[in-house]
Amino acid sequence: MPFVALFVQKFGGSSVADPDRIRNVADYVARRYRRGDDLVLVVSAMGKETDELLRLAREVSNTRPGREMDMLVTGGERKATALVCMALHDLGVPADSFTGSQAGFVTDTNHTNAKILQVNPDRIRDSVAKRRVAVVGGSQGVSTDNDVTFLGRGGSDTTAVALAYALGADACELYTDVSGVFSADPRVVDGARRMDKVSFDEMLEMCASGCPKPAVRSVEFARTWRVPLHVRSSFTWEPGTWITEEDLTMEDAIVSAVTHEESEAKLTVRGVPDRPGIAATLFRRLAERDINVDMIVQNVSLNGVANISFTVPQGDLEAAMELCEAYVADIDGAGVVATAAIGKVSLVGAGMRTNPGVAAKVFETLADNDINIEMISTSAIRISCVVPEDDVERAVQVLHTAFGLDV
Amino acid sequence: MPFVALFVQKFGGSSVADPDRIRNVADYVARRYRRGDDLVLVVSAMGKETDELLRLAREVSNTRPGREMDMLVTGGERKATALVCMALHDLGVPADSFTGSQAGFVTDTNHTNAKILQVNPDRIRDSVAKRRVAVVGGSQGVSTDNDVTFLGRGGSDTTAVALAYALGADACELYTDVSGVFSADPRVVDGARRMDKVSFDEMLEMCASGCPKPAVRSVEFARTWRVPLHVRSSFTWEPGTWITEEDLTMEDAIVSAVTHEESEAKLTVRGVPDRPGIAATLFRRLAERDINVDMIVQNVSLNGVANISFTVPQGDLEAAMELCEAYVADIDGAGVVATAAIGKVSLVGAGMRTNPGVAAKVFETLADNDINIEMISTSAIRISCVVPEDDVERAVQVLHTAFGLDV
Repeated sequence: MPFVALFVQKFGGSSVADPDRIRNVADYVARRYRRGDDLVLVVSAMGKETDELLRLAREVSNTRPGREMDMLVTGGERKATALVCMALHDLGVPADSFTGSQAGFVTDTNHTNAKILQVNPDRIRDSVAKRRVAVVGGSQGVSTDNDVTFLGRGGSDTTAVALAYALGADACELYTDVSGVFSADPRVVDGARRMDKVSFDEMLEMCASGCPKPAVRSVEFARTWRVPLHVRSSFTWEPGTWITEEDLTMEDAIVSAVTHEESEAKLTVRGVPDRPGIAATLFRRLAERDINVDMIVQNVSLNGVANISFTVPQGDLEAAMELCEAYVADIDGAGVVATAAIGKVSLVGAGMRTNPGVAAKVFETLADNDINIEMISTSAIRISCVVPEDDVERAVQVLHTAFGLDV
Repeated sequence: MPFVALFVQKFGGSSVADPDRIRNVADYVARRYRRGDDLVLVVSAMGKETDELLRLAREVSNTRPGREMDMLVTGGERKATALVCMALHDLGVPADSFTGSQAGFVTDTNHTNAKILQVNPDRIRDSVAKRRVAVVGGSQGVSTDNDVTFLGRGGSDTTAVALAYALGADACELYTDVSGVFSADPRVVDGARRMDKVSFDEMLEMCASGCPKPAVRSVEFARTWRVPLHVRSSFTWEPGTWITEEDLTMEDAIVSAVTHEESEAKLTVRGVPDRPGIAATLFRRLAERDINVDMIVQNVSLNGVANISFTVPQGDLEAAMELCEAYVADIDGAGVVATAAIGKVSLVGAGMRTNPGVAAKVFETLADNDINIEMISTSAIRISCVVPEDDVERAVQVLHTAFGLDV
C-alpha cells in the first residue's frame, strides 16, 4: 500500500439528484481529499435526467439514430461533472471536469451501447499529480470515428472500473442509494444482513439472479482485471460491501445470499423431436429477435420427443410466444404453454461447490413450506428455482432462515 | 452564384424552444434541402435552458470557475443539435450533429466569453459534400488548452457568421422570433416598416442604439469579412431583412430607422477644472470598474470649469455615482447629479452623412412636440438624443413620421 492512496469514486444518479445532494457529495469528497487521498470521481446524470432526455427525443422524433442519441444522452453526465466541480471549488478543493473523450475513453462505433477499446487517461493523471480532483462523465467516450459515444445504461460503473484499472487505483468505490450488498432483499427478509465481503464470482451470480447493484458488466471487468470494488452508500457514508477475489475466510460460508427476480416469464414448448439441432434452431431464432433467454431446461425424452422450458423477460413474452408458435408449426410440435406469473429464487455461495447436499436442503425446505418448484438450474456457486410468483417472497424468507443467514 | 447554393442557418433559442418548434424547424429545413440547397445549421439552446443551467449552478455553488461554467452551459446547445438532427432524420433528411470542437472552432482560453482564434470546419465540409445537413452547437469551441469554451450570450450568431465565412457560404440566415429589422419598434410605432435591406454600418449603429437583433459582435464580424446576413422569422418563414454592404439604392433613403433605448441613466459632474487629463481620469476610473459609458457630452467651459454629462446602464448607476462623488472630492469639483429616468432616441441612416439639415429637423420636430433634449451625440450615420423617459415613445413616433418612414 503506498503512502497516498488513489481511489476512483463513482456517484450514481441518486447521489447527485439535486443541488443539495451534489453539495453533500462535495462535502464528503472534500473530507477524503483533506485526509490525503488522491481522488478521481465518475458521475452519472442527475436523478431521472437520462429518462427525461429519452422522453424528449421520443417527443421530437420517431427516428432516433444512435449517433444523435449518444450526443443527446451523454450531456446528462457532462452537466453533472461541471456542477460537482463547482461544489468542490466552493469548499476550496481544486477540481476539473472531463468528458469521456477528454478522459481518454476510446470506444468502438456501436452507438448507444459502445464498448471501451482503450483508456488513455493522461489528462486525469496530470490532474491528480497536481493534487486536483478529476471529475469524469460516466458511460461515455469518443469512437474511432471521432464521434461521441454512450456506453449504455449503467455504464458509469464500467467507466469507474476501467479508469481504476487504467490508473492503477487502490480501489474503486461505487456510491449508491443502498448501503451495500445484502444477503437478501431487506424489503422481503427482515433478517437480511449487509455483507462485508463478497467474491467477484458470487457477485456475478447475484447480479444475474436479481440483486440490483452494481452493473454486471463492471463486475466482469473488475474480476478480469482484479480491481477491488467497494459498494457503499452516498446517504449514510458508512463502509459497505467489498467485492474482491475469494479468500479463505469467504469459504467458511457455504451460502452467502438469497436473491430473487420477478420480472421473468416461463414458456414451455411441448413435443419437440429429440434430434440434434432442433432445439438449437429455437434458440437461434430467439437470439435473432434479441430475446434474452435466461434459464433453459429440457426434460428427459420420451418416445423421441421432449419438452423444452425456458424463461424470458416478461416484456419479451408476447414476441417469444409468437415465435414459438411458428416454430411449433415448423417442427410439427405439440404446442406452447406460457406462464407470466413466475419468479426465480437463487442461492449464491462460493462454498457450495465443495458442499454437496445444498441442493437437497433447498428442495426439502421449499417442499416443507408447500412451495412447488417448476424449474431448476444450477452453476458451481448458484442454485436457482423457478416458483409461482405468489410464493417468491416466502421462498426467499424460508431459505434465508434455513441456511442460517438471518441476523 | 453557383448552381447549388450553400447557406448557414442559425436558429435561436425561441426557434427550438420545444419539440413542436424543433419539428417546425426540421420541416422548413427539409423543404430547403429538397429544393437543392446545401445547408449548415447553427442552433442555440432550447428556450430558457441557458438561464436554467445558470440558476442550477448558482444553487449548487457560490464558486463557479469559468472552465466549469463553460462545460455546463455549452451542454444546452449540444442537446439542441442532437434533437434537431433526429427531427431531420424523421423527415428523411440525413443530418449529423457537431459540437463546437468537432466543427473546428478553436478559441482562446478566456472562459465564459472566449474569442474564436480559427475555424477548421473539415468535418462540416465532409458532411455537406455527402449531401448531409451539418448541425453545429452555437457559441462554443475548444480552447488552445483543449478545454470546452463558451463564446458568451448571443454567441450563436457569431458562430454562424464565422462558419459562413470559413465555408464560403452564399449567405448566413439568422432565424429569430421577429420577421426582420424594423424602421422602429413595431410595439411603439404603428407605421413601423420591415426593412428589406440595411447596410452593415447602419445595423451596427442600430444595435448600439437599441435595436435588439442580431448580436453586435456577429455584425462586426460579417462586415469585416463581407458575409451577407439575412435576419428572418422561424415562425412565419417569410423573407426578412438583408444586411449587406451599402449599395446605391440604399443611399436614396436619408434616414432608415428610429431606434430607442430606455435602460440607461445619466450623470452630470459639475465644476470640473478645464485642464488636460482631468476628464480622462474620470473615464479611466469608470473603465477600471467595468462601467460601460455610452454617450459623453462636455459643455463649453466657463471661468475655467466645465460640466461633464454621460450615460451608463441603469444597473451601474449606483457604482458610477459613488465613484463620481469620490472623483468630485479629489478634483474639488462642484457636485454630481444623477437622473435614472432618461431614454435615448436615435435616427440611423447611411444617407445622413451627405444630407445636412437632418440634425436641425430632429431638433425642430422634438421642440414642436414639447420634448426636451438633454444630451446630443452624433456619428456620420446616426443622431442620438437623450430625452426624459416619459417622452421616449412619443419622440420615436413623431420622428418616424417626420422623416417619412411610416408605411
